[in-house]
Amino acid sequence: MELWLEEHHTADVSFRLRVREQLYTHRSDFQKIDVYDSYEFGRVLVLDNAIMLTEKDEFIYHEMIVHPAMAVHPAVRRALIIGGGDGGALRELARYDAVEAIDLVEIDALVIEACRRHMPSVASAFDDPRLTVVDEDGLRFVRHVAQPYDLIIVDSTDPFGPGESLFSREFYGNCYEALADDGILINQHESPYYREDALEAYASYAKTSRIFPIAKVYQAHIPTYPSGHWLFGFLSKRYDPLRDLDALRWHALGLDTRYYNTDLHEGAFRLPTYVRRLLETGALI
Amino acid sequence: MELWLEEHHTADVSFRLRVREQLYTHRSDFQKIDVYDSYEFGRVLVLDNAIMLTEKDEFIYHEMIVHPAMAVHPAVRRALIIGGGDGGALRELARYDAVEAIDLVEIDALVIEACRRHMPSVASAFDDPRLTVVDEDGLRFVRHVAQPYDLIIVDSTDPFGPGESLFSREFYGNCYEALADDGILINQHESPYYREDALEAYASYAKTSRIFPIAKVYQAHIPTYPSGHWLFGFLSKRYDPLRDLDALRWHALGLDTRYYNTDLHEGAFRLPTYVRRLLETGALI
Repeated sequence: MELWLEEHHTADVSFRLRVREQLYTHRSDFQKIDVYDSYEFGRVLVLDNAIMLTEKDEFIYHEMIVHPAMAVHPAVRRALIIGGGDGGALRELARYDAVEAIDLVEIDALVIEACRRHMPSVASAFDDPRLTVVDEDGLRFVRHVAQPYDLIIVDSTDPFGPGESLFSREFYGNCYEALADDGILINQHESPYYREDALEAYASYAKTSRIFPIAKVYQAHIPTYPSGHWLFGFLSKRYDPLRDLDALRWHALGLDTRYYNTDLHEGAFRLPTYVRRLLETGALI
Repeated sequence: MELWLEEHHTADVSFRLRVREQLYTHRSDFQKIDVYDSYEFGRVLVLDNAIMLTEKDEFIYHEMIVHPAMAVHPAVRRALIIGGGDGGALRELARYDAVEAIDLVEIDALVIEACRRHMPSVASAFDDPRLTVVDEDGLRFVRHVAQPYDLIIVDSTDPFGPGESLFSREFYGNCYEALADDGILINQHESPYYREDALEAYASYAKTSRIFPIAKVYQAHIPTYPSGHWLFGFLSKRYDPLRDLDALRWHALGLDTRYYNTDLHEGAFRLPTYVRRLLETGALI
């Protein structure tokens, strides 16, 4: 007998992985949360039947949602993570000693609990003394930010279900206000390839590029996400991701990374023609 | 009733696509050849149960195996394609008017026949007057090349079955001899992600980097290949893929491409840290 987990990337395409067993399942107030132990990818976190992360390739997503901004901004002291209840973005951010305060706003406390229990290598920084976990809707939280952030990371689920409001214009407008004058916002930006994902990527860029003076998109290879081609948004009030990259400063920190490096940083913003056209005009392939 | 095509990327991971019907099947002297009509990807060419190309994303692979070298070498007049019986690399190469002669050495004439019949948008340049098709094993062909080539493209299947000899040291040594003093060789270089593919990518780099003074690897996002993260080798006697990129000359040609652009060219050679480590030391993730 074999147990296979199958995720539909479109109605006509699916990705399957063989699992040893299901380690956790719970229906929270917001979504269905499952953790499986797979043969190829180690443990797998699934929210509402979509793979959120696997132990084998989560380093790619989490390094890429944190380090590019940190290699550009000269002094991130206050950071906000919206979503990210698995703790992966937090883990990467917590590696920077100069960061003084990290607020993590996760709508679903059960995601944190499940990951602390079943994904310890990902949820490894929840005891960091600089961290404040806020159990609230991100949309609501950013309406009343008193002290501005240097960096906001929007580590949301897909724009269906509990993550939906994190793709709204109101949310990004409030994030803009919640950022310092030289603040940077990074958001997960969906994939450019399959039609539904690509339309979301276009919509996200159309909204955010009207709000932020600097709006660039970069990419990474994430094997367990639909198409393997994933985008991130770099939204900024002052710093340009290429012009203001400070590779020497970043290297001096001595961080060991497995996907990110500053040479890759320069490459990641150079997009395929069809992705450029998608972001600029909404054209689909 | 639904018909699904399933390709195993490892024993514990598979990729499935729903198909309307099978359009072609034949067992040649070398391999099993199938063409399906799929809902998401259009027509799909399958050799020995591995997806070789789909109408929807073949432009990525074929643009990336041809244009980077053409944007670097100032004057490709004689080109050799080894494998590539689907005609996709040929189609891209034939867009360059300055190319005077293209030899395409395909061991399996039935692949050409199947693609001319069922993949007309890919196999669109077989009537080009500059083309000579040679029905021979690539390994054998490169042993007796009289007139050197400016460019050799090794568009092989995976290193199992008929494509195996195209990953041998003898083959690459002979390709080196068959190239002009400023010649470039591009090879499909497998994927860095899943163990078996990654080991082949390492082996390929270890072999070729001992033969060619300039040996670089670049990457592309190809959704229907295992992990979606695919590598190409840029092997060269004189030209460096970044230093000698001539973006102005390439743009002056006015070629419309959907994946490749010269900005992406500069990005594609900037590899993730784990891929660098794999190529340099064989380390697996």
